[in-house]
Amino acid sequence: MATPRFFSSFEETDQKILLEDPDEFQHFARVLRLKRGDAVELVNGHGALVTGVVDQVGSSSAVITCREILVIPPADTTRLTIACAIPKRAKFESIIEKCTELGVTRIIPLLSERTEVIVDPRKNEKKAGRFGRVVINAAKQARRLHFPEITEPLSFSRALHLLVRQDVKILIPWLEGERLPVAQALSSLNGCREVAFFIGPEGDFTPQEIRMAVDAGAIPVSLGDTVLKVDTAAIAVSAFARFSGGTA
Amino acid sequence: MATPRFFSSFEETDQKILLEDPDEFQHFARVLRLKRGDAVELVNGHGALVTGVVDQVGSSSAVITCREILVIPPADTTRLTIACAIPKRAKFESIIEKCTELGVTRIIPLLSERTEVIVDPRKNEKKAGRFGRVVINAAKQARRLHFPEITEPLSFSRALHLLVRQDVKILIPWLEGERLPVAQALSSLNGCREVAFFIGPEGDFTPQEIRMAVDAGAIPVSLGDTVLKVDTAAIAVSAFARFSGGTA
Repeated sequence: MATPRFFSSFEETDQKILLEDPDEFQHFARVLRLKRGDAVELVNGHGALVTGVVDQVGSSSAVITCREILVIPPADTTRLTIACAIPKRAKFESIIEKCTELGVTRIIPLLSERTEVIVDPRKNEKKAGRFGRVVINAAKQARRLHFPEITEPLSFSRALHLLVRQDVKILIPWLEGERLPVAQALSSLNGCREVAFFIGPEGDFTPQEIRMAVDAGAIPVSLGDTVLKVDTAAIAVSAFARFSGGTA
Repeated sequence: MATPRFFSSFEETDQKILLEDPDEFQHFARVLRLKRGDAVELVNGHGALVTGVVDQVGSSSAVITCREILVIPPADTTRLTIACAIPKRAKFESIIEKCTELGVTRIIPLLSERTEVIVDPRKNEKKAGRFGRVVINAAKQARRLHFPEITEPLSFSRALHLLVRQDVKILIPWLEGERLPVAQALSSLNGCREVAFFIGPEGDFTPQEIRMAVDAGAIPVSLGDTVLKVDTAAIAVSAFARFSGGTA
């Protein structure tokens, strides 16, 4: 059995670390029934991996004594952002899970013209909490130490402007018009600091959105002859970027 | 609205085509309520696309008159087989769906040493029917005319021998040992007729299985630093093979 791994937002200098995230503590105390003296691993999502020993177990938190800490700097590879239209059904959590496994560094939930999800600000906080939980579980299982950032939902134009301002190179798959094969477009960006893929909704981006993106410097690309669903496209480009050697 | 598309196992020479698959007819008659004179498309999964008109609607089947038939030969690219350990939960249907979208030509449900699924022959037929349904729906949505083949579940050694006998080049991702990066291994096979990926179960292949595969000529490969779930790995390698230009 591998040593059980938990998430806690500790600092690298902490000697005693509090495990207080309710879901993590639930798993620690109720599922695995860990107790004083048991060995555990802790990750903070920012590259630190602590090997420690349970010191105290309370009713809603535990204290872990750090025995050893390994700190891995972020990989010196191209960072990858996936700005993905929020699918109609609850597939976004599966996209977050798989993009986390595949080493994506940032995920932007995207509101496009044809996105049918109405974003209710009152529900956003709850949803952000669920997304965070998906990231933690996927990263622990994938043995990933740097968690991806999930931004708040952004409109197409806000996401575009944010990425342009950060000098991120943008690829935008589209089903029509003049496009480069994705492999050719990605290899032309070889060695750049960060690449973003915009992934359109069911029904694709509108010509107006594509024009806006191209005017901002984005490259329209083709993902092949068949039509991919939103989640398939998001996972597929993440995998391709990873294995092409750029990212992850 | 795009013209509705249905699956029927017709021949390319048929002038009148019977739509009799129960699920397809259900969608035709009960959901879309199509009637005499309506335009429809029919696919047979072997490259034929018929544009036709509804001629008669019965109680459990309909007759379509063929107006035009387009026959696309199989693409002259590397064929891709995914031999994938059957995951514990019902994720295999999602793997079939996404591999169909991504242009995989054959999917082998794989029984490996650490596969926990017990295959019950009495249930196999029902399951094969469900898998076929997933293929039809995914292919229609992806606008794919050549459907992938789903074989019966095969043991690791039977799948290996089948592929070796067919002169298929085999890549086998593994989490340990000496491995090539997947991009390097795949590009070394550039131009070959068919490539297969073996995808291991949760807990990975055993060293014995890897040894057996290597002895048969398979190349162990790495999919990167993080650990991918079974379904993520299957989808990721399919996407990579597709976009690398070999397949789809």
